[in-house]
Amino acid sequence: MDPAFSFCEGGKIEVRPTVRVRDADELSMAYTPGVAGVCEAIARDPDLAYRYTWKRNAILIVTDGTAVLGLGNIGPLAALPVMEGKSLLIKNFGGINAVPMCLATRETDEIIETVVRMAPAFGGIILEDISAPRCFDIETRLQDLLDIPVFHDDQHGTAIVVLAALLNAARVTGRTLADLRVVVSGAGAAGVAITNMLLDAGIGDIAVGDSRGLLFPGRDNLSGIKADLARRTNKAGHSGSLNAAIAGADVFIGVSAGRIPDEVVASMAANAIVFALANPVPEVHPDVARRTAAVTATGRSDYPNQINNVLVFPGLFRGALDVRAARITGGMMRAAAGAIAAVVGDDLAPDHIVPSVFDTRVAAGVSQAVAAAARAGGVARA
Amino acid sequence: MDPAFSFCEGGKIEVRPTVRVRDADELSMAYTPGVAGVCEAIARDPDLAYRYTWKRNAILIVTDGTAVLGLGNIGPLAALPVMEGKSLLIKNFGGINAVPMCLATRETDEIIETVVRMAPAFGGIILEDISAPRCFDIETRLQDLLDIPVFHDDQHGTAIVVLAALLNAARVTGRTLADLRVVVSGAGAAGVAITNMLLDAGIGDIAVGDSRGLLFPGRDNLSGIKADLARRTNKAGHSGSLNAAIAGADVFIGVSAGRIPDEVVASMAANAIVFALANPVPEVHPDVARRTAAVTATGRSDYPNQINNVLVFPGLFRGALDVRAARITGGMMRAAAGAIAAVVGDDLAPDHIVPSVFDTRVAAGVSQAVAAAARAGGVARA
Repeated sequence: MDPAFSFCEGGKIEVRPTVRVRDADELSMAYTPGVAGVCEAIARDPDLAYRYTWKRNAILIVTDGTAVLGLGNIGPLAALPVMEGKSLLIKNFGGINAVPMCLATRETDEIIETVVRMAPAFGGIILEDISAPRCFDIETRLQDLLDIPVFHDDQHGTAIVVLAALLNAARVTGRTLADLRVVVSGAGAAGVAITNMLLDAGIGDIAVGDSRGLLFPGRDNLSGIKADLARRTNKAGHSGSLNAAIAGADVFIGVSAGRIPDEVVASMAANAIVFALANPVPEVHPDVARRTAAVTATGRSDYPNQINNVLVFPGLFRGALDVRAARITGGMMRAAAGAIAAVVGDDLAPDHIVPSVFDTRVAAGVSQAVAAAARAGGVARA
Repeated sequence: MDPAFSFCEGGKIEVRPTVRVRDADELSMAYTPGVAGVCEAIARDPDLAYRYTWKRNAILIVTDGTAVLGLGNIGPLAALPVMEGKSLLIKNFGGINAVPMCLATRETDEIIETVVRMAPAFGGIILEDISAPRCFDIETRLQDLLDIPVFHDDQHGTAIVVLAALLNAARVTGRTLADLRVVVSGAGAAGVAITNMLLDAGIGDIAVGDSRGLLFPGRDNLSGIKADLARRTNKAGHSGSLNAAIAGADVFIGVSAGRIPDEVVASMAANAIVFALANPVPEVHPDVARRTAAVTATGRSDYPNQINNVLVFPGLFRGALDVRAARITGGMMRAAAGAIAAVVGDDLAPDHIVPSVFDTRVAAGVSQAVAAAARAGGVARA
C-alpha cells in the first residue's frame, strides 16, 4: 500500500486553542459575555481585529479542484489532501495559520464573490490548483476587490523559485540574465507567470510554446493572455515548432509535461540550462539533460536542484503579513527570488543552485526581503 | 483595562499540523507529488475523504455578524472574537476542529449559496449569531441542500439546554412537563426554538410574547414563523399583555432582554420556575426571582444554574460526527437535553438543575446519547 495513505489518515492539520480556559472568568473572556467588549471595540475600529483576533496571521488556501497536481480536474474534495499539506507546510516554515477551502463551484464569478465574502477574518488569500485561463482573471479581479494579498501560487510561487534558480544557474555558468535566450514550454498558469517574471527581471529573449507550438503575433486563435505574451516575447521571431526554437537556446524551462526528444536537448547552446519541471515525469530526464546541460533542475526530490514552491510561499506570506501588505507586488516577488538565491551563497555549484526546502534560512531570508520590498513599494501598512 | 483584551490578543486559536514532516519522503506524502495517490482515490470514492482528510472532524462556524451576543448587528469582523471562542470551546470539550467564518454578506440567498460552496471539506456547519427571521430560512434551506448537519446554535443550542434545565426544575419541584403552563418572552431565534422544543417534549401550554405583546391567531401583522407559533401555542387563549399571561404561570422563560416588573414575577403560581436568560442583564434579577420562584436560572456565570449552550454544542457535534449523521433531528436534540439533565443525577437541587460547563461528563454523555438517537432515527451513516 502507498505509504501516503497512512500518512494522511485522519487528516494532517487541526484547529486548536492558543489560550487556556480553566474557570468561569476565562470562559467569559473567551466566549460570552466577557468577550463583548472586544467585539464592540473592533466594530468601532476594524483595525483592532489585527490585534485581538487571528486575522493578522490567518490565511485561506482556496481551490476549486480543477488543476490539482498533475491530475487535472478532480474536484474540490479530492484536492483537500494537497490543501492540508500546504497548510501544514506554511505553518511549519512560516508560522502561519492556513485554512484549506475547497469550493464547490468552478464559475469564475462565483469563486470571486465567494472569496470576497469569506475574506473579512483573514489576512491573505492563496489561490491554488485553479486551472488556466480562469486563474488569471480570478487573481487579478480578487486583488482589485480586496485589501489583503491575493496570490496564485501555481503562477507566482513557481515563477519566483524559477527566477531564483536561474539567477544562480547564470552565476555558476558565468553569465547574466540579459545574456540568456530562453524557451518556455507551457503557457498555462506557471508558464505565463514565469515568462512575465523573467521579462521583468531582464532576461534577453524568451520564446513560449503551448501544445500547438510557439506563440507569435500572427498565430491563429490566440486568446487574450497568450496574444499578449506573443507580443512581448519571441524577439528572435521563431514561428515554427518548439523544438526548432530550443536549438541553440541557452535555457529550457518545461512546465507542460510535453516530452522533449534527446536530440533536441543536444541541440541547445553550450553551457545550457535545463529546468524540466513536470511532475512526476520531467519533460527531459535529468540523466539525459546532463549530457548536454551545464545545469539541470527538476521538480523531483530524488534529483539535485529541486524547484519546489515550498521555498517561496511560507516566507513570502510571513513577510507580507508581518507588514500587513495590501498586495504582493512584482518587487516583493523579485525580492523573494533574490533571497532564495542568496541563501545558496558560497555553496553554489551546478548541482546546488537552490537551497534545501528544509533550510530554515530560506523562509527567514525571504520574509525579511519581502517585508522590505513591501515597505519600499508603499504597500506595507504596519 | 478590560482583561478580555489581553486574553484575546493575537487571537485565541491556531491551525497546526498533526503529522511531522522531517525529510523529503514525508514532504512528498504531505504535499506533492506523493499525495497524488490519495487525491485520486478520493476522486474515485468521495467517502474516502472521511478517512484520509480532516473532513470527518472539521466543521465551519458561520456568521454574518448580524446578531452578536447582545450587541446586535456589529458586522462579520467584529463577531470574530466570539467565533474564535466558540472554536476554542468545541475543541476543548468536543475534540472538534472548527473554523470561524465571518461572511461579508447579510443576504439570505448569498449566505446559503456561500455555505454550500464552502461545504465540501467540512463534516458539519454551525450557524451562529445570524438574526431572525433570516436564520430560520437559512438553516432550513441549507439542511435541505447539504448532506451534513446544519445547526443554528442560537436557536437549538439554547433550546436544548433550556429543556434540560426544565426537566430538572420540574423534577426538583415534583412535577412533569405536562403539568406546566409556560410563558416565553421573546419570539426571535431562541424563543421560537425553545417553544418548538418544549411543545415537542410535551409541555402543557405555552404562551409566547414579543415586543408587541402575546402571540395569538387574531393578532395583526404576524409574520410566517410567528403566525405559525400563534396557531400552535397559547391554548389558554390569552390576548393581552405578556405580564397578564405571566400571572399564575408555572414557568417564565425570558430570551428577550425586556425587563419584567417585580410584582409581575410575584403573581406567578406557587413553586414557580424563572429562567431569565438575557445577558448581561436578565429580565428578572435572580435576587428578585428567588422571592417568588422555587427555581431560578440565568445566562450568567456569577449566579447558580447558568443556562449556557457550551453544555450542548461540543457533545452534540461530537456525537453527530462520530456516526456521520446527515442532519440533527429533533430526537437527537431531545436526547442531548436528557443527557445534560441526567448528568446532574442525585446532586439535583433548586440551585443545581444544570451541570457545570466544566463537567467533562456532559460532552461525553451528550455525544453518546446523540449518536444513539441518530442511529435510532436513521440518519447515521457510520
